[in-house]
Amino acid sequence: MVVTLLTDFGLQDEYVGVIKGVILSIQPSAVIVDLCHQIPPGDVERAAWLLEWSWRHFPAGAVHVAVVDPGVGSDRRILCVPHRGHLFLAPDNGLLSWVLAGVRRPHAIWVKNSRFFLKPVSRTFHGRDIFAPVAARLCGGLDPSDLGPRVRSVRRLPVSRNGSGCAGRVIQFDRFGNAVTDLRWRDHGKGARGRWSVRVGGRHIAEIRTSYSSVPEGGALAVVGSRGLLEIAVNRGSAERKFGLEIGDRVEVVRIP
Amino acid sequence: MVVTLLTDFGLQDEYVGVIKGVILSIQPSAVIVDLCHQIPPGDVERAAWLLEWSWRHFPAGAVHVAVVDPGVGSDRRILCVPHRGHLFLAPDNGLLSWVLAGVRRPHAIWVKNSRFFLKPVSRTFHGRDIFAPVAARLCGGLDPSDLGPRVRSVRRLPVSRNGSGCAGRVIQFDRFGNAVTDLRWRDHGKGARGRWSVRVGGRHIAEIRTSYSSVPEGGALAVVGSRGLLEIAVNRGSAERKFGLEIGDRVEVVRIP
Amino acid sequence: MVVTLLTDFGLQDEYVGVIKGVILSIQPSAVIVDLCHQIPPGDVERAAWLLEWSWRHFPAGAVHVAVVDPGVGSDRRILCVPHRGHLFLAPDNGLLSWVLAGVRRPHAIWVKNSRFFLKPVSRTFHGRDIFAPVAARLCGGLDPSDLGPRVRSVRRLPVSRNGSGCAGRVIQFDRFGNAVTDLRWRDHGKGARGRWSVRVGGRHIAEIRTSYSSVPEGGALAVVGSRGLLEIAVNRGSAERKFGLEIGDRVEVVRIP
Repeated sequence: MVVTLLTDFGLQDEYVGVIKGVILSIQPSAVIVDLCHQIPPGDVERAAWLLEWSWRHFPAGAVHVAVVDPGVGSDRRILCVPHRGHLFLAPDNGLLSWVLAGVRRPHAIWVKNSRFFLKPVSRTFHGRDIFAPVAARLCGGLDPSDLGPRVRSVRRLPVSRNGSGCAGRVIQFDRFGNAVTDLRWRDHGKGARGRWSVRVGGRHIAEIRTSYSSVPEGGALAVVGSRGLLEIAVNRGSAERKFGLEIGDRVEVVRIP
Repeated sequence: MVVTLLTDFGLQDEYVGVIKGVILSIQPSAVIVDLCHQIPPGDVERAAWLLEWSWRHFPAGAVHVAVVDPGVGSDRRILCVPHRGHLFLAPDNGLLSWVLAGVRRPHAIWVKNSRFFLKPVSRTFHGRDIFAPVAARLCGGLDPSDLGPRVRSVRRLPVSRNGSGCAGRVIQFDRFGNAVTDLRWRDHGKGARGRWSVRVGGRHIAEIRTSYSSVPEGGALAVVGSRGLLEIAVNRGSAERKFGLEIGDRVEVVRIP
Repeated sequence: MVVTLLTDFGLQDEYVGVIKGVILSIQPSAVIVDLCHQIPPGDVERAAWLLEWSWRHFPAGAVHVAVVDPGVGSDRRILCVPHRGHLFLAPDNGLLSWVLAGVRRPHAIWVKNSRFFLKPVSRTFHGRDIFAPVAARLCGGLDPSDLGPRVRSVRRLPVSRNGSGCAGRVIQFDRFGNAVTDLRWRDHGKGARGRWSVRVGGRHIAEIRTSYSSVPEGGALAVVGSRGLLEIAVNRGSAERKFGLEIGDRVEVVRIP
């Protein structure tokens, strides 16, 4: 059974390895996959977003463990949420906002039953003491309802799932400096044929194309990326740096006559 | 069976992947876990410390392979040390100093029997040619005593396992900029109740608290971290940067009247 | 069955995790090993070189997936190449140049049969939509000839596999700042005994030695590295920085009288 890990622990300390050790001690057959450990410290928004574009690609039954948890040691709750055949384990700080965006009343369980925790539970590393052993048990077939009571509501961050029509925002950057927007361009329908200009702050940046190499090296383009969202890119370069883009920048798509 | 890897090889070269290839070629069922590959080149002290906080969390029988080995190709020995149901494989350069800190006469074997090595053994990559194939054999049940003769003594670095009472030192930093000290504050007993000031170089830095979020964002605190050691932290920030802390800095804890 | 992954995706996004999810969804027993994800974006040369020094160390039957693919979405082909009991999956952009350097007519198959792809195939992430599901099928025993027609020729980059005799070039650097040359010094035969000076741009840099620690800390040396190639190194330091070396620098070895 697959367990995925998404954290802001980085790779320079022993934290990620220790979580794996705890999981394998309880569930030796677990197949552990790193989603990402390079989330900037405490950046719940980026983690929430990254989880959304990942979980669907894993086998049903996977346990997704997300520990970007600046509130560790406070009275923030830890949640276990079964959703479309997958199980999510995360602090109740908005980390599941994207995954649960379309779900009005998610079936969320408060992970409260300390029987499944490592003892003593530290004040600073619930990844090791709570998330890891609980994930291992879930992986081994534990019923989520054994973890604690159901909660009434889950904390949500505002998520921009869809720019409206032809206007949206830059929501994240990737390693290549591609600026991902919240515009689902494919949904724009047949009117999307023809030539379209992508503008940021009123300035023409690039035309919508079908692949990076449809422009020369160093040239800018917009393209429907792997998430189905419009991205601004530079062939063999960084759109983030070339245009000084930032998260939140307003993006418009305008038909070229 | 679990094999853990701890190196200073980084992730930009093929070195770590190659070690895994060699292990899996010999022992296809090995479960390989990365502890850390971002040890600064040659920093045996950090590796020794990181190993100490990791190994206990893995299942008994795990083989822990630690290759921070600036003396590779010289006549430094490679050791295999069974300890509390785990097996350690490391150069004899102090890397096991923390793990074996309480053990006066560790049962250490000199890995000398070249029958288990890849041939020819290179002068620069014993991780591939010696550590990996030997780890794979151990994982497959090889008796450590088949690897070579027992050695009389093991090289040790000075380890500061316990600041005395209320005075200690900064010994490492983690990704978040938390400064880990050698003070086992829990051991300080019931006298630890009340308010306590943590001072570095005579200057008050922070009070001891129970969680990061017990101070506002950007505020400093000291907290008993996941290793049971007192750490100096900044909520959502870096204590290392905020206070210009360095490894070796003297730390005192003083009761606040 | 082992699947190795070599990409320029880095570790800050979800891309690598998603590829693993797709593979495990199709082939739950696949053992996935990261070769490297830190290839500089689009650096096909470095990827080609890194693959060469890796694949041999994996068990026969391994599927090596290499996605450094600046031409994604263009009409560049994806190839599947069986070679010495291993399977290689890579864009036809020179990535297999080192692996196939000695092979005049490689048995290369054009991965064209979309039956094995995820649908819809994105324009920007063939790693997820083509490479991953095809690798999983190959891992599960799919005959490569089911993937598409055989191609007549494979794109090649110039590879410098052997400096001639005593003159060669710097071809890559590793994490430690070691400069790897294309000189197979061992092949130079018995004449190699004696003392030899390594020169870059006419300047004496170092003598050939047998291990890093044969010179004092900070001292320079040349050594036959783990790839069988002559490397220029600095004990506990970086030859790249100390001598300002660059890829392509001409290296000569001259006997010291």
